[in-house]
Amino acid sequence: MKDYVFSFEEIKEGNTEEAQFLLGNKGAQLCEMTSKGLPVPPGFTITTEGCREFYDLGKKWPVGLNEQVKKKLEALEKKMGKKLGDDKNPLFVSVRSGSYVSMPGMMETILNLGMNDKSVVAFGSQTKNERAAWDSYRRFIQMFGDVVLEIDMPKFEHVLEKAKETKGVSFDTELDAEDLKKIVSEYKAIVKQEKGKEFPQNPWEQLTLSIDAVFSSWNCTRALAYRRINKLRDDAGTGVNVQSMVFGNMGNDSGTGVAFTRNPANGNKEHYGEFLINAQGEDVVAGIRTPEPIDALKKYLPKAYEELIETYEILEKNYKEMQDFEFTIEKNKLYLLQTRKGKRTAHAAVKIAVDMEKEGIISKEEAVLRVDPNQLNQLLHKQLDPIAREKHEVIAKGLAASPGAAVGKAVFNAEKAKDMFEKNPKEKIVLIRTETSPEDIEGMHVSQGFLTARGGITSHAAVVARGMGKPCVSGCGEITVHEKEGYFEVPSKGIKIKEFEIVSLDGATGEVYQGEIPLVEPQMKGEFGELMKWADSFKKLGVRTNADTPHDAQVARNFGAEGIGLCRTEHMFFEGERIKAMREMILADTLEGRKKALTKLLPYQKADFLGLFEAMNGLDVTIRLLDPPLHEFLPREEKDIKDLATEMKISVEKVKSTIHALHEFNPMLGFRGCRLAIVYPEIAEMQVQAIIEAAIDSKRKGIDAKAEIMVPVLCLENEMKFMKELIDNTAKAIMQTKGEKVKYKVGVMMELPRACIIADKIAEHAEFFSFGTNDLTQTTFGFSRDDAGTFIKHYLDKKIFKDDPFESVDQEGVGELIKMSVSKGRKTKPELKVGICGEQGGDPKSVEFCHNVGLSYVSCSPFRVPIARLAAAHAALKDKKK
Amino acid sequence: MKDYVFSFEEIKEGNTEEAQFLLGNKGAQLCEMTSKGLPVPPGFTITTEGCREFYDLGKKWPVGLNEQVKKKLEALEKKMGKKLGDDKNPLFVSVRSGSYVSMPGMMETILNLGMNDKSVVAFGSQTKNERAAWDSYRRFIQMFGDVVLEIDMPKFEHVLEKAKETKGVSFDTELDAEDLKKIVSEYKAIVKQEKGKEFPQNPWEQLTLSIDAVFSSWNCTRALAYRRINKLRDDAGTGVNVQSMVFGNMGNDSGTGVAFTRNPANGNKEHYGEFLINAQGEDVVAGIRTPEPIDALKKYLPKAYEELIETYEILEKNYKEMQDFEFTIEKNKLYLLQTRKGKRTAHAAVKIAVDMEKEGIISKEEAVLRVDPNQLNQLLHKQLDPIAREKHEVIAKGLAASPGAAVGKAVFNAEKAKDMFEKNPKEKIVLIRTETSPEDIEGMHVSQGFLTARGGITSHAAVVARGMGKPCVSGCGEITVHEKEGYFEVPSKGIKIKEFEIVSLDGATGEVYQGEIPLVEPQMKGEFGELMKWADSFKKLGVRTNADTPHDAQVARNFGAEGIGLCRTEHMFFEGERIKAMREMILADTLEGRKKALTKLLPYQKADFLGLFEAMNGLDVTIRLLDPPLHEFLPREEKDIKDLATEMKISVEKVKSTIHALHEFNPMLGFRGCRLAIVYPEIAEMQVQAIIEAAIDSKRKGIDAKAEIMVPVLCLENEMKFMKELIDNTAKAIMQTKGEKVKYKVGVMMELPRACIIADKIAEHAEFFSFGTNDLTQTTFGFSRDDAGTFIKHYLDKKIFKDDPFESVDQEGVGELIKMSVSKGRKTKPELKVGICGEQGGDPKSVEFCHNVGLSYVSCSPFRVPIARLAAAHAALKDKKK
Repeated sequence: MKDYVFSFEEIKEGNTEEAQFLLGNKGAQLCEMTSKGLPVPPGFTITTEGCREFYDLGKKWPVGLNEQVKKKLEALEKKMGKKLGDDKNPLFVSVRSGSYVSMPGMMETILNLGMNDKSVVAFGSQTKNERAAWDSYRRFIQMFGDVVLEIDMPKFEHVLEKAKETKGVSFDTELDAEDLKKIVSEYKAIVKQEKGKEFPQNPWEQLTLSIDAVFSSWNCTRALAYRRINKLRDDAGTGVNVQSMVFGNMGNDSGTGVAFTRNPANGNKEHYGEFLINAQGEDVVAGIRTPEPIDALKKYLPKAYEELIETYEILEKNYKEMQDFEFTIEKNKLYLLQTRKGKRTAHAAVKIAVDMEKEGIISKEEAVLRVDPNQLNQLLHKQLDPIAREKHEVIAKGLAASPGAAVGKAVFNAEKAKDMFEKNPKEKIVLIRTETSPEDIEGMHVSQGFLTARGGITSHAAVVARGMGKPCVSGCGEITVHEKEGYFEVPSKGIKIKEFEIVSLDGATGEVYQGEIPLVEPQMKGEFGELMKWADSFKKLGVRTNADTPHDAQVARNFGAEGIGLCRTEHMFFEGERIKAMREMILADTLEGRKKALTKLLPYQKADFLGLFEAMNGLDVTIRLLDPPLHEFLPREEKDIKDLATEMKISVEKVKSTIHALHEFNPMLGFRGCRLAIVYPEIAEMQVQAIIEAAIDSKRKGIDAKAEIMVPVLCLENEMKFMKELIDNTAKAIMQTKGEKVKYKVGVMMELPRACIIADKIAEHAEFFSFGTNDLTQTTFGFSRDDAGTFIKHYLDKKIFKDDPFESVDQEGVGELIKMSVSKGRKTKPELKVGICGEQGGDPKSVEFCHNVGLSYVSCSPFRVPIARLAAAHAALKDKKK
Repeated sequence: MKDYVFSFEEIKEGNTEEAQFLLGNKGAQLCEMTSKGLPVPPGFTITTEGCREFYDLGKKWPVGLNEQVKKKLEALEKKMGKKLGDDKNPLFVSVRSGSYVSMPGMMETILNLGMNDKSVVAFGSQTKNERAAWDSYRRFIQMFGDVVLEIDMPKFEHVLEKAKETKGVSFDTELDAEDLKKIVSEYKAIVKQEKGKEFPQNPWEQLTLSIDAVFSSWNCTRALAYRRINKLRDDAGTGVNVQSMVFGNMGNDSGTGVAFTRNPANGNKEHYGEFLINAQGEDVVAGIRTPEPIDALKKYLPKAYEELIETYEILEKNYKEMQDFEFTIEKNKLYLLQTRKGKRTAHAAVKIAVDMEKEGIISKEEAVLRVDPNQLNQLLHKQLDPIAREKHEVIAKGLAASPGAAVGKAVFNAEKAKDMFEKNPKEKIVLIRTETSPEDIEGMHVSQGFLTARGGITSHAAVVARGMGKPCVSGCGEITVHEKEGYFEVPSKGIKIKEFEIVSLDGATGEVYQGEIPLVEPQMKGEFGELMKWADSFKKLGVRTNADTPHDAQVARNFGAEGIGLCRTEHMFFEGERIKAMREMILADTLEGRKKALTKLLPYQKADFLGLFEAMNGLDVTIRLLDPPLHEFLPREEKDIKDLATEMKISVEKVKSTIHALHEFNPMLGFRGCRLAIVYPEIAEMQVQAIIEAAIDSKRKGIDAKAEIMVPVLCLENEMKFMKELIDNTAKAIMQTKGEKVKYKVGVMMELPRACIIADKIAEHAEFFSFGTNDLTQTTFGFSRDDAGTFIKHYLDKKIFKDDPFESVDQEGVGELIKMSVSKGRKTKPELKVGICGEQGGDPKSVEFCHNVGLSYVSCSPFRVPIARLAAAHAALKDKKK
């Protein structure tokens, strides 16, 4: 027969993964503290295995569990010299849940179990505190009634309120023993009325029913939701901790509290926490009386205070981690009821890790591993004031597409945003669209952040936002945007926000607020820099940035980027005069016409590249040739079409027929990337000319330009041959004309399954690969990132998959293709440089994958560079451990 | 030093692939005939290797070639007892091209080489035929002037015409020696005037310049185009055949002709061919005098005739193939100048293959291999009358999307086509659209064929056409269709065709004609059936059909289909009342609303499946669950939207907002296939119910229904688990309700790269795989089949790839994924049935690939079933040979 129940003394090493999974974290830490001699009230734990079998058996106890609980209870009674619910010398216990990961408040707890009509009397006379005894009984009936018997709480609360009212007092503590006795009898009447039978007096019945209730709470709605959101295992089960009660409500020499060994908000080493005198645990949470800070305890109970301060040290010394623990003081004696790793802000996480290294508690490696890379997001963007935001209601919630906070006037048209900004450059605008398009780029530039009703976390708005380091909430399906009419609404809430009304967005949570919430500056202190230096010393992967402008490049370099992994040249074609020349090129019927227009674009492109080379002096700059389909550069609105026709001096019909001819059913799979270059080589030739001329100019100015020319949307070996020849021939001609040689590399953006399959052949003509995981994910799955939102949320709900594959590299599918490419490519060319430049380059899980498959670097948006650096260090350290 | 030159006697086995590649086909067959004792005028061949090196050296002769030609010429002179261009006993030679595959008329030929001012006199007195001598000289100057000196032909022709005019005669043969002498001197004057020097009198100079000209003609424009169209190797080079001349223009005891050993049009064994008395080869082609049929030769030259008839037998006996050969009779003696495998119609190919087997010339295997599967297309569809079509001009040419011919009134609107047909079911309609959509389906049903301006060979129009066995010309970019105005135009030709004007299409060539061309019935004679029986006995692959209706299924079964590999259920939702219920389902906001609408669709679906099971009694029927995105079922035109709103009693806004909500940027990668079933399981449940109920009804009627339920657009193992469970649960419930058990299989359409990568995991829950190569090609390449037309033609022109990957399985990329799937899938489940149901299932090259990778079957449109059967036999026989 299996062992389902362990007393706290039986397990010596509680702080291990195995113990935590078997006993639940709470149970395991109770064992750990017990074995370290900390003052833990004795008790025992039913394993999570017991819970799992409970479910397997259709909510029945596995064979043996009953006997084992009985045996452990008897042992506990013997140890305590008391008997559960006894009428002379009663033992009382708490019954608490506890899974492998702490799920605070999600499952059930019952305190004071063992209370009945007789034990309450015995307890009162034993403790000489009748009031405390009846108060505990009252609390027990209420909790048991709620959790086990499923009676609505307000029924009990109503009685309590009425009693206080009748007596004319405000606090429970002002009720005396007699009042409480009356309440208890009224509580019992409620139970009888609701359930048709008496409140159970038998302590064993109380215990088994409570264990059942805790098991069952594993699958209650809020626990299921919590696990879904936090991506926790549904099959783990909860442990059940049965622990002898200590009472914080025994009078003014008793109390209860919660403490952190360091400040979880800012990381300072101080006595953080709070307590209540003469109270049980739930009173702290309930917030009826205001708890006092830890150091205030000194004046009430100096001895217990001393013990508590020592406990801070013992816990940190033992766990080598900041702890969040609960304590109760019963008649001046301190007991610990629970400890766990303390949750903290990013800022605190960084400070604590660095401080602990300095204090000699942990190593540099450990310090680096202590900070979750994703958490750094909080350090890199302005935030909504956390206090002020509490006062505002969330009116809608979309996808957390780009972190940071934006506050400004709602504007529904990019053109208008631009106009407003031109009139008043201090104007704060939040651009709100059903979806954004490349035409909106200038309006996006002048906005604080973006909110879109459609599009995923890799939609245009989201990608641009992350590139610009601006906040974005995308795919906010709850809202309907009426661009023309100038408002948006949240139909489910009957809310309508008109143009120029102020809204606030949190791009890190996806929350949208009506009205203005003040912003707080990001806090970047010395410890952050120090930690990042340590991280860099451990990581093996290079970290580059995706940047299209010298400004972005500079920002990223400040964040530690070691090069540009992706410069999207097309973003350069949308501004001012450039878009005109681009359109002229597209509308030209002849090669000469196209060349003429391209000649106008050349100086712009050249200047752009020069700026990038300057900003990245000495570092690689990967420039991708024109990628999007040409129709993206043409106007859509009737008015814009007319304006264009007038400007170009051609007929409206001509413009329309070009737009019509370029229309595509599936632009994602259409006429784009190197396909454009093969049909119209003159476009790529102009771009190569601009790159090489900029490199030559750089060299003459003493700047070390390291251009890497990247060919997009490639799937055939002959495409690569064609492009390599085109690039080399163009470069050679320019170098001859200019009488100056510069070095450059030619590589390929690997973003189609076919390219991965023939990577060995492509590698013969390429010096580097860079995985474009957005498109590779789209084609491997057959998911359009713009459309898949419709079903991806259902897929997550129905657990068809665990992670959105656009957030994190799908290792089973896309990852296999990446692995295949790396291995085939390096077989042809062992020195092949291989990176990743899709959106996932800044996702820690994906960074770990990239490290493991041997990539040379990852590239991500500037504001994710520190995250990727830390993630790369984590990957290297984990790899070393293996 | 390499051997670049071989005399005809030196090579004993000319009819081998090696000899043909080395010497060119013409040279190799001259060797072959020489070695078999046939009367071939002696000569020698310069190898294709010589030509290749000529190009490698920048159009210079490789070292040694000059000496080798000289030596072989001397040997030839010795053998003939004559000297090239001698003034006493002159030898004359022809210089002819010849590549590894015959490229008729594409490269250059020079006859009568060696003629000069002295040899012409010697030849005249030797042959006692001064006229023939000067005629030969005249012809030589003209040919040499054209081919070597590049003087415009009309300059020479003008002189000849003037001479005939002056003399008042019509034919060259009516000019006498004196006339011809004058012409020769005028020809020489032209050469002097054009080139600034005399016509070369030195025979060696004549020869070397002519060899140069033949080498150069390998890369002349028309030869390059011919090779591109016929997908021949550009790097092969041409051989050069130098052969002693025999003269068909020596008088009425001489002549020249072309013969086929059997009738290439109908395959009959008869003396097919034609000749001209007193003529050289070019006269037959020129068509000034009308040649006479072979048997007419008997009365002119009975001895030569007898020899010729014997030659028919000898050639066929030797080559075991129908031959197309050229002959010359010089003074009653027969000479053979060339032989090659005769081109033939599909009808003739089948008859000749079967006849030859019966005659004991070839085996059944060989007979089957003799017929090109693609050619069978000609036998399966009505044809434009080949004589009548010659009189019509091709006004436009599109893609040959579905074979057969259509003649009828141009109609630009499917609704109108339907109305016309309802008024007069005999109406012949050709539906002409920019592109077709599923809404056009009824109009397509009543049309003879389709012409579209856009879309590739796998566009909607093309797929539907092949499914229906109707002709289609798609992607005809030269035309512009004005649906609303009711006409189409060919702007480049200034042609405008209005509604109801008659047009004729040839779907096998892509040609479009104005006006009515009569049709001829397809000829399917006994030999065809016999050959197919032999093919079936050799093939290993199963051949199924893609069919959506009992009629299609029956047609395919008549063509030998062994099951249905793909039934697209969505095609069933477009007719009459069904589309209403489908739209009601899509517009419903609730599960109940959707279920109500689905209940209406159920009886239709059930009846459809019952019909299929009946038609395919005892054979597998693979039914694919709903595949396309829902927006395809909604109307697009304003009027239709209004009608729908009225009918459904909902607001126009509601319809529009649903259409808006369902709009997708890339529908190909959107909300479709099993994604629909996972979000709205009720749709798939209704379909499974219809399938299982139809199978139960079939069983009760004594019909053996073998349903295979196929899940489309799948890429995740959990999708498969979900669908398998849904299908099994639904089926179980139906069987319980009906009290009858039926068997069915559950499988998956493999059409996304990710599915192929995790095939081992999918196979755990699937009983069969069927590759949907259309979508798999789209996602593997990142090509949308609807949009890729823009660049695919450039890719073919620029040789980025050899074959359009939508026509034939791309073995390097898509093929690798297929191989990977088969191997991973069968590793999990060795008995896994694996087929292919994309458009390529009927493409012979793809069929061979499917055989080689071990698929169980291919499935194609009904009219391609015989092609696939024959291709499968070819694949098996080729495999056996290995």
